[in-house]
Amino acid sequence: MEAANLIEGISGTGPLAARRRGILFVMSGPSGVGKGTIVKALLKLQPELKLSVSVTTRQPRPGEEEGVSYFFRTPEEFQRMVSAGELLEYAQFANGFYGTPRRFVEEELLRGHNVVLEIETKGAIQVKERVANGVFIFVLPPTMEELHERLVKRQSEAAEAIRQRLAIAMDELNYLPFYDYQLVNDDLEVAVKKVQAVILAEHCRVVRNLSTY
Amino acid sequence: MEAANLIEGISGTGPLAARRRGILFVMSGPSGVGKGTIVKALLKLQPELKLSVSVTTRQPRPGEEEGVSYFFRTPEEFQRMVSAGELLEYAQFANGFYGTPRRFVEEELLRGHNVVLEIETKGAIQVKERVANGVFIFVLPPTMEELHERLVKRQSEAAEAIRQRLAIAMDELNYLPFYDYQLVNDDLEVAVKKVQAVILAEHCRVVRNLSTY
Repeated sequence: MEAANLIEGISGTGPLAARRRGILFVMSGPSGVGKGTIVKALLKLQPELKLSVSVTTRQPRPGEEEGVSYFFRTPEEFQRMVSAGELLEYAQFANGFYGTPRRFVEEELLRGHNVVLEIETKGAIQVKERVANGVFIFVLPPTMEELHERLVKRQSEAAEAIRQRLAIAMDELNYLPFYDYQLVNDDLEVAVKKVQAVILAEHCRVVRNLSTY
Repeated sequence: MEAANLIEGISGTGPLAARRRGILFVMSGPSGVGKGTIVKALLKLQPELKLSVSVTTRQPRPGEEEGVSYFFRTPEEFQRMVSAGELLEYAQFANGFYGTPRRFVEEELLRGHNVVLEIETKGAIQVKERVANGVFIFVLPPTMEELHERLVKRQSEAAEAIRQRLAIAMDELNYLPFYDYQLVNDDLEVAVKKVQAVILAEHCRVVRNLSTY
C-alpha cells in the first residue's frame, strides 16, 4: 500500500501533491553575459515563473523601472534591510550594493511556485548556502572578447569600469564548480531552451518528488 | 588563461571538446508501463541517440524483429555471454533471461554518442553500479490499475503471468530512490518531452563539462 501511495503522490493527484514546494532557479554569471535577456525571454514563454526583483543602491539606467527592474534604495535604507535580516543575499559592486528580498522568495516557494533569481556570482554563492535544493545555472559568454564587446556596446560605463567588470568576470569563473548547470549564451533561443529543459528536468528529479514524504 | 581555456572547452569549440564522452540514459520501470513506446517516440525525434538492443532467451512476440527488438538467443548462448563477461547487466524474469551487450554501449559512449538503454529495474541497478555518470529514469504508471489494464490489453500472457508482473512492479517501486528522474506515463507526448528535457539538461550539468579537464 505504501508503494501505491507513493505513485499517487508522484502523479500529482494525491493528497500530498499540494504540499510540494516550488523550486528556486538562480540564473547567474558575469555582468554583461546576457542573463537578463535570457530571463526576459524565459518569462515570456513561462509567465507562471515568479521573478524576484532585487534591491540596489545604484542609479537607474535608462529604461529601468522601479519595482520592475530593481527596487532602487538609498545606501541607508539598504543597510537597514541588511541589519533587519530582510535580504537573502547581498553584495557590493563597483557601482553599488545589490540584494535579494528574502520574504518574496520564501513565500512564493511555500506556495509551490517556481522562483527565478537573476543575480551576480557572489550573491548566488550566498543563496546556495541558505536555500537547500536551489538550482544554480551559470551563464557563460562565448568568449571573453565577446563579453568585452557586449559591455562596450551597453555604453553605460567608462572604459575603466568595463576593465574592472572583465577582471571580476574572470574571477567569477572560479565559482563555476559550485553551480549545477552551465550554458553558453551564444544563441538566445538555444540558451532559453536549455533553461526550460533544466526547469522541466528538475521537476522530474526523484529526490524532489520523494522529499514531500 | 586557465579560465579562458575553460570557456573555450565549455563552448564546445576548444581542443578538449572532441574528447567528451557520450551519456548513458537508462529508461526503466515496471513491465507494461510503456517504456518501449516512449523510447520509440524519442528516437523518432532524436535519431542521433543510439539505442542498445538487448539479448533475450524468451520467445519473440508477434512483430518483434531479430537485432531490432532484441537479439534472440538460446539459454546456452546466453550463458556463454555471461561467462565471457560480454553483458553489462542481465536478469532472469518469468519468461526468460535478458541482458545488455557491453561492447556496443562502451564503444558508442567513447565515440561521444548518447546511448539509450531500455531495461527492467533489476538490470538498471546493476548498470548503476558499473557505469559512472549514467542517467537513470524511472517510468511510472498513472496507477497500478492502469498498469494491470495495459498488461491485459497486450494479450500476450496468461492471467497468472500478469499477476506475477504486477507483484514484481510493486516490488520495483522500492528501487525508485536509486534513480535520478521519474515520470508518469499518462500522456506519451508529455512523457517524451520530459525525457528530452532530461537529456538536454544533463548536457548542461557543470560536473559533466568539468569532467573532461
